[in-house]
Amino acid sequence: MSARKPGKAALQKLLGRARFVSGYSLKLVSVTDDACTVSMPFRRALERPGGTVNGPAFMAAADCAMWLAIKRHIGIEHDAVTLELNTAFLNAARRETVYCSARVLKLGKRIIYGSAECHDRAGKLFTHHTVTYARI
Amino acid sequence: MSARKPGKAALQKLLGRARFVSGYSLKLVSVTDDACTVSMPFRRALERPGGTVNGPAFMAAADCAMWLAIKRHIGIEHDAVTLELNTAFLNAARRETVYCSARVLKLGKRIIYGSAECHDRAGKLFTHHTVTYARI
Amino acid sequence: MSARKPGKAALQKLLGRARFVSGYSLKLVSVTDDACTVSMPFRRALERPGGTVNGPAFMAAADCAMWLAIKRHIGIEHDAVTLELNTAFLNAARRETVYCSARVLKLGKRIIYGSAECHDRAGKLFTHHTVTYARI
Amino acid sequence: MSARKPGKAALQKLLGRARFVSGYSLKLVSVTDDACTVSMPFRRALERPGGTVNGPAFMAAADCAMWLAIKRHIGIEHDAVTLELNTAFLNAARRETVYCSARVLKLGKRIIYGSAECHDRAGKLFTHHTVTYARI
Repeated sequence: MSARKPGKAALQKLLGRARFVSGYSLKLVSVTDDACTVSMPFRRALERPGGTVNGPAFMAAADCAMWLAIKRHIGIEHDAVTLELNTAFLNAARRETVYCSARVLKLGKRIIYGSAECHDRAGKLFTHHTVTYARI
Repeated sequence: MSARKPGKAALQKLLGRARFVSGYSLKLVSVTDDACTVSMPFRRALERPGGTVNGPAFMAAADCAMWLAIKRHIGIEHDAVTLELNTAFLNAARRETVYCSARVLKLGKRIIYGSAECHDRAGKLFTHHTVTYARI
Repeated sequence: MSARKPGKAALQKLLGRARFVSGYSLKLVSVTDDACTVSMPFRRALERPGGTVNGPAFMAAADCAMWLAIKRHIGIEHDAVTLELNTAFLNAARRETVYCSARVLKLGKRIIYGSAECHDRAGKLFTHHTVTYARI
Repeated sequence: MSARKPGKAALQKLLGRARFVSGYSLKLVSVTDDACTVSMPFRRALERPGGTVNGPAFMAAADCAMWLAIKRHIGIEHDAVTLELNTAFLNAARRETVYCSARVLKLGKRIIYGSAECHDRAGKLFTHHTVTYARI
């Protein structure tokens, strides 16, 4: 019998303990089998000259949103590590909260692949990502 | 007549003023027409659980090393922005200085493309990147 | 005043003249502002050992579906060339018609970026792509 | 004791039997532990309008050169399949022989990652690729 999938509360707790993204104040907004969305509030430390959000912040959000989307499917007690992260920078974000939605497209026994998008509240895209994880 | 290419001192000065990577304490190690290498000292803020360097730090180093490699070719007064950054995570870095070497493979009138590698002092690879910039 | 967008008949005609994909017998299935779908019938020439569709065929379908999706937006008289094509191979296709749906995510003045998916009639994914075009 | 690594004759023979690239007339030019180079003669079937080599041909060459570079390391009796292939189109090739050189950057127990370049005889780049294989 398969274990129950972790819900929003369990994944939010996991995210709160995840030191590797602790500098980004990410919050879990929603999670279903289909997609996982996190939010990243604007902070001065994420700012590039001109008041836009810097690249590493988007990539951290994408990696984290995908990690939670994967945990939803494989369970909190199992883990996976990032093999590849491809990023396209489409539009600048200006001193605003960034949302990142990740979706698992292939849940293999060894490899997990998906896409993620950083966007504003209205859905305007900032970045587009593809992410490959290996189960461990 | 084409302007003289900026040397190490001018690019180091540019890097010192570049706020978008100010959190990473990057230093310019060497620059030629062929390649540009920066170093990133280990700091607690870059640490993942287990004492390894986190993903965004590698990606910030790659983006910055490529930006300097491009400035070497187009001059400090011209600029370019990151369109795409692809990253493969190959080996973990453990509480150590990371070096990142970037190389321009195509210097187009509009698009610049290159590869970058993060590695230790002996050349062992941590990450491999391809980077696309658009001239502005 | 902007020109009218080309419809299915005009794009199907364009595809019929496009020699660069003439080996793949691609047909336009549907086109809207949101997405463009082409079909690729199975042929022996696309076969790998084991009866699966080979990698270049998927990549040709993705490149072509994106090209038509772009033509829909910029018009048949304007053109764009492929800068980058990233492909993830997710599931094998077995002696069957492959469908490829492409979607423009950023229509810039110089750079156009989108994603494409090859799938079967029921929507099962074979490959996932991101594609970058430059307007010329 | 580890088996001897396959040499040029054994890999050329393997390539000759590899139906999945039989349409491209690829020949093995050289192979060492460091790199593997194949050649692809120009043929009308590879031509795009304007007399340039089409995209799928470059991608087929890159995939094949990497596959042989991997076989060199893991032996002919072991196999690996392509997970991801990223391609940047840098310069057009015009009715000429294309060479493709692949290099393994990480030989993991499960994942193999490398880069490949298609170029002319003098080394001018046509395309740059990164390739991810999974061992099976």
